[in-house]
Amino acid sequence: MSKKVITISREFGSGGRTIARMVAERLGYAFYDKALVERIAKESGYSEDFIERRGEDATSTSSFLFNLARSGSGGYEGVSGISDKLYVIQHNLIKRLPEEGPCVIVGRCSDYILKDFEDSLHVFIYADTQFKADRIVRLYGEREDLPEKRLEEKDKKRKVYYKNYTGRVWGMSTNYDISLNSGKIGVENCADIIVDLATRR
Amino acid sequence: MSKKVITISREFGSGGRTIARMVAERLGYAFYDKALVERIAKESGYSEDFIERRGEDATSTSSFLFNLARSGSGGYEGVSGISDKLYVIQHNLIKRLPEEGPCVIVGRCSDYILKDFEDSLHVFIYADTQFKADRIVRLYGEREDLPEKRLEEKDKKRKVYYKNYTGRVWGMSTNYDISLNSGKIGVENCADIIVDLATRR
Repeated sequence: MSKKVITISREFGSGGRTIARMVAERLGYAFYDKALVERIAKESGYSEDFIERRGEDATSTSSFLFNLARSGSGGYEGVSGISDKLYVIQHNLIKRLPEEGPCVIVGRCSDYILKDFEDSLHVFIYADTQFKADRIVRLYGEREDLPEKRLEEKDKKRKVYYKNYTGRVWGMSTNYDISLNSGKIGVENCADIIVDLATRR
Repeated sequence: MSKKVITISREFGSGGRTIARMVAERLGYAFYDKALVERIAKESGYSEDFIERRGEDATSTSSFLFNLARSGSGGYEGVSGISDKLYVIQHNLIKRLPEEGPCVIVGRCSDYILKDFEDSLHVFIYADTQFKADRIVRLYGEREDLPEKRLEEKDKKRKVYYKNYTGRVWGMSTNYDISLNSGKIGVENCADIIVDLATRR
């Protein structure tokens, strides 16, 4: 049975987004990265730029899960803050995406949101610091901050965001069906493995 | 470049040991599971049964890394307790194994001990509770304790042991080169992926 939905979570600089795009192209699946931001913008009324800034790299001071628990009803009453509102819109949108057809979704807690979707494959891509540092300098250029610092800051935010909205530890193997070190295995090989797994049996 | 050493860490009941054996057979590599216990017994003078009981599933009250740091020299002075002594013998043995030829090693912090060995592939195998519970009942039979409790106790000990001797969190993707959910992907498919990765380029 082929996998209709593939979620790809990734460390910054690991090539996870590139792998996701390759997989989507090879399988002919819809690709939700930038396209997801556009959809969230359309549904929420916020600008794409604003959503990028308040997205999965944003830090939040309050605990979404705590607020949700406090609201008692299991609904969204009591949820406060723009980040939380954006998360709810994003959550509901991602939940509906598989109905529209096979797709590859990058990040945004999609592994958690679609964890109970049967025909899914949840992937985590990471790499050693040196591989990621070289990659972000090559792709995004030099900045004032050292690449190692840029990596650390970005992933720290993703970790906090993920913990806040899922209650899980970002990067734990058991959150995903497969985790791959793209630096060691190679970006192309990672895409090969995922395509093979998605179409096998 | 093919991988000369494959370490396979695994949740209890995930089929990780079976996968490791399949990989070793298909690649014609030495297989260190029971054979590793025999070697440790030979080098330490302790019985195999004793080593099994004081091995990676043993809980320890003292922190090995703390004792090591306190000893100051980076050597093994100040290390106390039979578990620690066994760990040191095991550590030195695993470190030397690649010199004897290509091999597959199951558990025992081998991923950590050989993390800097270049031609290596470090694998983590895990699965959902239901898959593991069904598997241990089928393989090891019913016991007084519920299978879910047996799983939890065994893995909790492995987690503590690993943390104590490596300082790392057991099951974090970044400890390994690839992590696979054997329940979702299938035991045979996991072996296929590992053999393919070990022989690729």
